[in-house]
Amino acid sequence: MAHITLPDLPGIRGPMAFRPETAKPLNELAEILLRDDNNTLSRGERELIGAYVSSLNDCFFCQNVHGALAGHYLGCDIAAIDAIKKDYHSAPVSEKLKSLLSIAASVQKGGRHVTAEQIDQAKNLGATDREIHDTVLIAAAFCMYNRYVDGLATWAPEDRQYYVNRAPKRAEEGYLDFDLYTYK
Amino acid sequence: MAHITLPDLPGIRGPMAFRPETAKPLNELAEILLRDDNNTLSRGERELIGAYVSSLNDCFFCQNVHGALAGHYLGCDIAAIDAIKKDYHSAPVSEKLKSLLSIAASVQKGGRHVTAEQIDQAKNLGATDREIHDTVLIAAAFCMYNRYVDGLATWAPEDRQYYVNRAPKRAEEGYLDFDLYTYK
Repeated sequence: MAHITLPDLPGIRGPMAFRPETAKPLNELAEILLRDDNNTLSRGERELIGAYVSSLNDCFFCQNVHGALAGHYLGCDIAAIDAIKKDYHSAPVSEKLKSLLSIAASVQKGGRHVTAEQIDQAKNLGATDREIHDTVLIAAAFCMYNRYVDGLATWAPEDRQYYVNRAPKRAEEGYLDFDLYTYK
Repeated sequence: MAHITLPDLPGIRGPMAFRPETAKPLNELAEILLRDDNNTLSRGERELIGAYVSSLNDCFFCQNVHGALAGHYLGCDIAAIDAIKKDYHSAPVSEKLKSLLSIAASVQKGGRHVTAEQIDQAKNLGATDREIHDTVLIAAAFCMYNRYVDGLATWAPEDRQYYVNRAPKRAEEGYLDFDLYTYK
């Protein structure tokens, strides 16, 4: 049971429907960071960074929503996403993306954990300043979303297939074009 | 030196000027959470929660900006704010606010650290669901802002009086009505 009386919607949807005034910028931030086409990181790469940070924060809802979206965009199943979350070093992703996931993991611990060496490595592997910026902000933003979801003790569907099934529609509708109150 | 090439502005202003598309929802969230008048938590109380979480995250820029704003609104000096950040239990703030600061401290550690007992205590001391919601989201949001500021290794003025001097103008202008690029 959630810590406060929320609309009966899963995960972040409950508090977002409870407080639509704050939901608006929260969703706008997700839309720009994760979905906007003016970005040299693919949607799949950005969702993967979010899912990875959510797994480090042990947020079941967020890691499943965004893991399923990453799988949808990257064309791989949830087992492959789980393998990346568990050990991205040995996963079949680019060296540049690995360097960005390393930065994201440091951000999850705290901003000061990001080292000049990590940044140098990402740059040497071709990461731009914008890509590094977005990686840091995506990781930081998920440290917020995850705490919002779990700090209020929201509920989430336990069946992981639920998130996989919903991913194509979520990918299509994005973070702005759906009804907060019905979670259609 | 910041990890990426940013406009030469202190703290969060550098990355915000670098990427105004994401700055917009970040500032809108701060404005609604910390400054909107439709809230039973005072601006001072909300800024104090943000400053406290920023101190737990060891973010020099944010704890000084928002600590100075809290002092401005609450009518106390920076030494009093420092005393609250160091040990709010023995500080002259309401028992209700202490219960909310306790929740904020748990959110800073991670969403799952918030306990039903903490929530019950806050409710018994008169905290509403909306106040608990906003406390959780303010704490979560500062876990993002702090990581954004420090994860990119931005610089900040060392003289703490700088933040105190600027607080009245910041309080007046809010988080939306100023020029991101000049930090006037």
